[in-house]
Amino acid sequence: MASIREVAKRAGVSPATVSRVINGTARVDEEKRERVEKAIEETGFRPNELARALYRKSSKIIGVIVPDIENPFFSELAKAIEKEAYEQEYRILLCNSDDQKEKELANLQMLAQLQADGVILMTNTGEKSQSYEAVSMPIVFVDRRLDEMGQTSVIEADHYAGGKLAAEYLIACGCRQITCIRGPQELSSGKKRYEGYREVCRQHSMKERFVDSTYKYEDGAKAAEEVLRRYPDTDGIIACNDMTAVSVYKVLQKRGYRVPEDIQIIGFDGVKFGRFLTPELTTVAQPIKEMGKCAVQMILGTVKELPRDREMKFPVMLIKGETTKNKM
Amino acid sequence: MASIREVAKRAGVSPATVSRVINGTARVDEEKRERVEKAIEETGFRPNELARALYRKSSKIIGVIVPDIENPFFSELAKAIEKEAYEQEYRILLCNSDDQKEKELANLQMLAQLQADGVILMTNTGEKSQSYEAVSMPIVFVDRRLDEMGQTSVIEADHYAGGKLAAEYLIACGCRQITCIRGPQELSSGKKRYEGYREVCRQHSMKERFVDSTYKYEDGAKAAEEVLRRYPDTDGIIACNDMTAVSVYKVLQKRGYRVPEDIQIIGFDGVKFGRFLTPELTTVAQPIKEMGKCAVQMILGTVKELPRDREMKFPVMLIKGETTKNKM
Repeated sequence: MASIREVAKRAGVSPATVSRVINGTARVDEEKRERVEKAIEETGFRPNELARALYRKSSKIIGVIVPDIENPFFSELAKAIEKEAYEQEYRILLCNSDDQKEKELANLQMLAQLQADGVILMTNTGEKSQSYEAVSMPIVFVDRRLDEMGQTSVIEADHYAGGKLAAEYLIACGCRQITCIRGPQELSSGKKRYEGYREVCRQHSMKERFVDSTYKYEDGAKAAEEVLRRYPDTDGIIACNDMTAVSVYKVLQKRGYRVPEDIQIIGFDGVKFGRFLTPELTTVAQPIKEMGKCAVQMILGTVKELPRDREMKFPVMLIKGETTKNKM
Repeated sequence: MASIREVAKRAGVSPATVSRVINGTARVDEEKRERVEKAIEETGFRPNELARALYRKSSKIIGVIVPDIENPFFSELAKAIEKEAYEQEYRILLCNSDDQKEKELANLQMLAQLQADGVILMTNTGEKSQSYEAVSMPIVFVDRRLDEMGQTSVIEADHYAGGKLAAEYLIACGCRQITCIRGPQELSSGKKRYEGYREVCRQHSMKERFVDSTYKYEDGAKAAEEVLRRYPDTDGIIACNDMTAVSVYKVLQKRGYRVPEDIQIIGFDGVKFGRFLTPELTTVAQPIKEMGKCAVQMILGTVKELPRDREMKFPVMLIKGETTKNKM
């Protein structure tokens, strides 16, 4: 590959001038600029991306930190983010934090040193924002709202409306003893969805019943067993996410319950996965593609109508599957 | 953050000397080196990763190109790759090629300009190696063997043994009319698995029956319909991968077939996904974690016992689920 020196020689200018032309770091007179551009064309010289990044203080890299890329919600988000970034000629640097705060922070430092143009962060840690304030890059939080956020941006679905929608739909499907498998209450997603469910219980003067869990498939099974033990008359279960719903369905099957005849199930997220299942999962869907696209646009500052409080809330949508009686 | 100049000043050496110490680009006498290291410690100076990459001609980045991160096989592989890379203090730059040759090549060029230390490439295009020869970085192909590979390395499971294992197990479970839903025949994974199945048919003087498909869930449904139309007496189906098996199960259910009583199903890959399903999927599993780890080690040249032909073949393993009668 041609070097910057060959280009300079051919154009009869100094390498510094060539770099000025390439990076627009200083004014170069028209006639020289043309000679340089001609030389670049003739030599087929491709400027070193890293060197340019050094001048530009931009690496055209967007960091994406997910708690678990194996969770379909995050792999679908990552795919949407990569698609938009690629179209904007950015690349994504994917980091899997394994829900470990240390790994998340180590990744943030790596990204800062790489001069990433920003970070799209999906964290499962309920930690406060101090640890992120040190970071100079723009950070966009997706699906996870931390308290006292400082100057970061947030993208999330309307979890509260989602919790209400799930409860109201189960009631419409004939459920009277609805038990909620709650996600982590230190996370807005888990907290708000539960609050939505609780509000509906209040409106229908139903007693609220819940069991605590995480967003992991494995913990969903334990939670399902606990539901059957503590609330044996349950006729409807709101799972904190789709992976949990899948796990719950498996337990109910093993224990001889018919879904939806005996117990109805509704999940949250709307991952494709749920449509692949037999029976198909009824769920409250988040607009995953749109959220991923918006995250990239927020980093690049190209998002339209960014609200003053730097929070984007996306509407949720009911997907009627086969784990509910769909009497609507 | 402290600059290289502050470090140089404090150590009483030139910035060039500091950079030599940091990057080991040239010999520096012991006493000077110690002063520099002390100064780095005292100033808390963190060398700019990009600048170092420029000297080192290394970015500590490994490119990972997958056809579809949404496919659990690839998201599990990506997770394993990220884990190993992180432990080796490398980051992975994830690219989703969407099975598009152009996007794959564009990503390869981006990675070359970023001076990635290597690329782990999972391609669904059966194209010959010419297009990859241009790339100067080491490339490790995972799960996809192209003809005339040139100097690249290959990691794949023993697809041929896998195809045999699938067929033999269905026979052991009582199947006599086994139909194979073949993956793309221009890919070694699809070709070899099918050849394994065919070999078993020969041994058992069974007539081979197949339907062509892709590794996509959506195409699996069409293939299943074709199987029922062309081979209505089918009592066992070998799906080209787990996503296809899930799709096939759904179709059989809708058409009123009982699995495994009427028709048994076996998949390929062994993604976690399959264990989450009800019924659990019987499948031929690839050692996904080990393959991902090995891919990183091949790029970094730290792999133990790399065979001369630069090909690593991993053994497959049967996972007995509930879509077969498991008479073994």
